[in-house]
Amino acid sequence: MKDVKIIAFDADDTLWVNENYFRETEDQFCDLLEGYMAKHSLMQELYKTEIENIKIYGYGVKGFTLSMIETLYRITGGQGSLDLVNQVLNLGKSMLQQPIELLDGVEEVLSALYGKYRLVLATKGDLLDQERKLIKSGLEKYFHHIEIMSNKEENDYAKLIKHLDCEPREFLMVGNSVKSDILPVLQLGAHAIHVPYHTTWVHEQVAKDSHNHKYPEVGKINDILEFLPD
Amino acid sequence: MKDVKIIAFDADDTLWVNENYFRETEDQFCDLLEGYMAKHSLMQELYKTEIENIKIYGYGVKGFTLSMIETLYRITGGQGSLDLVNQVLNLGKSMLQQPIELLDGVEEVLSALYGKYRLVLATKGDLLDQERKLIKSGLEKYFHHIEIMSNKEENDYAKLIKHLDCEPREFLMVGNSVKSDILPVLQLGAHAIHVPYHTTWVHEQVAKDSHNHKYPEVGKINDILEFLPD
Repeated sequence: MKDVKIIAFDADDTLWVNENYFRETEDQFCDLLEGYMAKHSLMQELYKTEIENIKIYGYGVKGFTLSMIETLYRITGGQGSLDLVNQVLNLGKSMLQQPIELLDGVEEVLSALYGKYRLVLATKGDLLDQERKLIKSGLEKYFHHIEIMSNKEENDYAKLIKHLDCEPREFLMVGNSVKSDILPVLQLGAHAIHVPYHTTWVHEQVAKDSHNHKYPEVGKINDILEFLPD
Repeated sequence: MKDVKIIAFDADDTLWVNENYFRETEDQFCDLLEGYMAKHSLMQELYKTEIENIKIYGYGVKGFTLSMIETLYRITGGQGSLDLVNQVLNLGKSMLQQPIELLDGVEEVLSALYGKYRLVLATKGDLLDQERKLIKSGLEKYFHHIEIMSNKEENDYAKLIKHLDCEPREFLMVGNSVKSDILPVLQLGAHAIHVPYHTTWVHEQVAKDSHNHKYPEVGKINDILEFLPD
């Protein structure tokens, strides 16, 4: 990684806690509907709705809330009460106002790299929500560029790298999702370091044997410093 | 405008039809709920919900759909049927799949300016939805840079101008909203041309006597060429 000039960080579950809020909200959603369907089946129904809708809603809390409401409609056979819908709206609003909890070591790592590399934030989700989280995090000052992406596939990274006016070998991505942060970046000939988070959304999971890429995986974000020349 | 090097265009109702889809959807929403409330009052209730929610949902169709559902809950006193909610979800999905209808002269103007100026698209709304519309529009090829903004206030334009590495006097914004496309840009010492659209959302309207800025207003987008040196 001696050529690296730009380090891009994923945000949700790389810099701060995110997936936990989705899991907690899903639990509350299942509690609301426990009279209609068992949790396991309801989770499957919700996931099916989310995946079906991603192509038009994209990623983020607003689309997730709309998918919860659609699932509620379907599994109650249109017979549920409107009060349930209102409770789901409130679950969504709570997510959009959640506090920001930085993950261990994040601020330390960013401040160690700041000034030596151009630091970029590269994240998926709702535009305003991601901006809100960044401001609340207090981390905005470290970033040269913020890229809120509708998707994180190979061509999305190719556009980002072109926009940043660098070569793939000068670009390093750090993130918790092998599917979104690691594989598409390696595919372009750029670098990536995986910092796993304890919870990963099913949609972001990839089978270990589905690719031949090799990449460093570190236990905590501080460990990425070992891969970078002083 | 002799120093202008970058021309930024608003998208919705400047390059393509947009507000009409919101107005049509509002009409359909009112039809769904005509048993509960007269159209005029219902529109006021919906607007109130939208404005209240903008700070957490931001602009765009997904937040608009969530606000319709919240309004439905409130004005039916929680007694409406879930089927109404499902119909609102479908109204939202239709909006997210609407065709793109370019406004007259748009392609002509962009192709006349292309290569002479750096052209930028600067628009508010949902990330994926705006990207979808741009791709469907066939206009992507003209733009050097696409900026999907969570808000269009003075500091948002200041960031954009800084990002584009130009001076305010080198920046021209073209758009249909005096509030979002014209006044904040003039405030920074940059240029703006107003191309009114026949329908403007109440939230985007400003009183003529609320400011002292002077700016050109043109009847159709082609007329902006007259303000630019050959």
